[in-house]
Amino acid sequence: MAITTEMIKQLRELTQAGVLDCKRALEQNDGDFEKATEFLKQKGLASAAKKADRVAVDGRIEAYVHPGDKLAALVEINCETDFVARTEAFTTFCHDVAMQVAATAPRWVSRDDVPAAELAELKAEFAQQAVDENKPANLVERIVEGRLTKFYGETCLLEQPYIKDDTKTIQQLLTEAIARLGENIKIARFARFQISS
Amino acid sequence: MAITTEMIKQLRELTQAGVLDCKRALEQNDGDFEKATEFLKQKGLASAAKKADRVAVDGRIEAYVHPGDKLAALVEINCETDFVARTEAFTTFCHDVAMQVAATAPRWVSRDDVPAAELAELKAEFAQQAVDENKPANLVERIVEGRLTKFYGETCLLEQPYIKDDTKTIQQLLTEAIARLGENIKIARFARFQISS
Repeated sequence: MAITTEMIKQLRELTQAGVLDCKRALEQNDGDFEKATEFLKQKGLASAAKKADRVAVDGRIEAYVHPGDKLAALVEINCETDFVARTEAFTTFCHDVAMQVAATAPRWVSRDDVPAAELAELKAEFAQQAVDENKPANLVERIVEGRLTKFYGETCLLEQPYIKDDTKTIQQLLTEAIARLGENIKIARFARFQISS
Repeated sequence: MAITTEMIKQLRELTQAGVLDCKRALEQNDGDFEKATEFLKQKGLASAAKKADRVAVDGRIEAYVHPGDKLAALVEINCETDFVARTEAFTTFCHDVAMQVAATAPRWVSRDDVPAAELAELKAEFAQQAVDENKPANLVERIVEGRLTKFYGETCLLEQPYIKDDTKTIQQLLTEAIARLGENIKIARFARFQISS
């Protein structure tokens, strides 16, 4: 089977591997995209696929203490190597996330962390609200989805608008950091304490 | 009823109120200690009783980040006023507690925070161990108590030996801080994150 430039281009977009690696992967797998992707992955060249698989075991613990010492946040952010953990870009990212947590008091890192019971209760509540507001029955589901999205945007760190630039979310800030630093990065957990007086 | 110097002295020891206040409290309550104590308490003069009752609503959030940024602890320590929260003695106490948490990884603040289910399991385990070791049946209870005390001393912050001076526990350090600063002080909670690589 002839390997065309278009095929190589498509495989590159899929895997972010180099031109020659993609060409070879396609040639050795008779132009089969799935096999070629798997081939690249196993060779450690399909960096996009690889990044999501790679274990982020290094990283930084970052503290942000708000002036006055009545409010502070602690975050654990993982990357893959101590080398990246020590870069200024990573340190800045960690600092920004810690400050975000202090300022906005999220309850979870991602929407996947919301307990199932709480989510079920919330959905029932939003549905009841829509009914009470005399919304058409065929729109209730969409209204519930909309209110859930708003809830996630307020309570889940990754979906919050970034306090220093609300045109992007923390997830986007994270994606940018991954792109810039070339390692898998994960916001593992956070704590936030505040003196309530 | 005649109020003797000895009675006043005893009431003072009990309540830490002033001589004249104690004299008056005894006179107005016919020398009845309980009533006199209650009288002082209500007047806000029985400082010892008062301290335990008073709500510690101010305080500091203190972060300790270990050099290398792979390990950190956050603690909330409450006192009664912002004035005390800003003193060097209080700040130093908070710093020492945060460093203790980072160094020793306690699981709870006090033994009261150990979940009942885990405690029951632990007791059963220690009892079984004692039986397996062929300890006399009449000693098992005492052996279990001894092992529990050891467990508390390792896992409960207040019962841990202080890392900078292991002749005292964190509870003793706390009691000293209360005595020095004259306010109720409470270690409310802590978080500790560590990069495990």
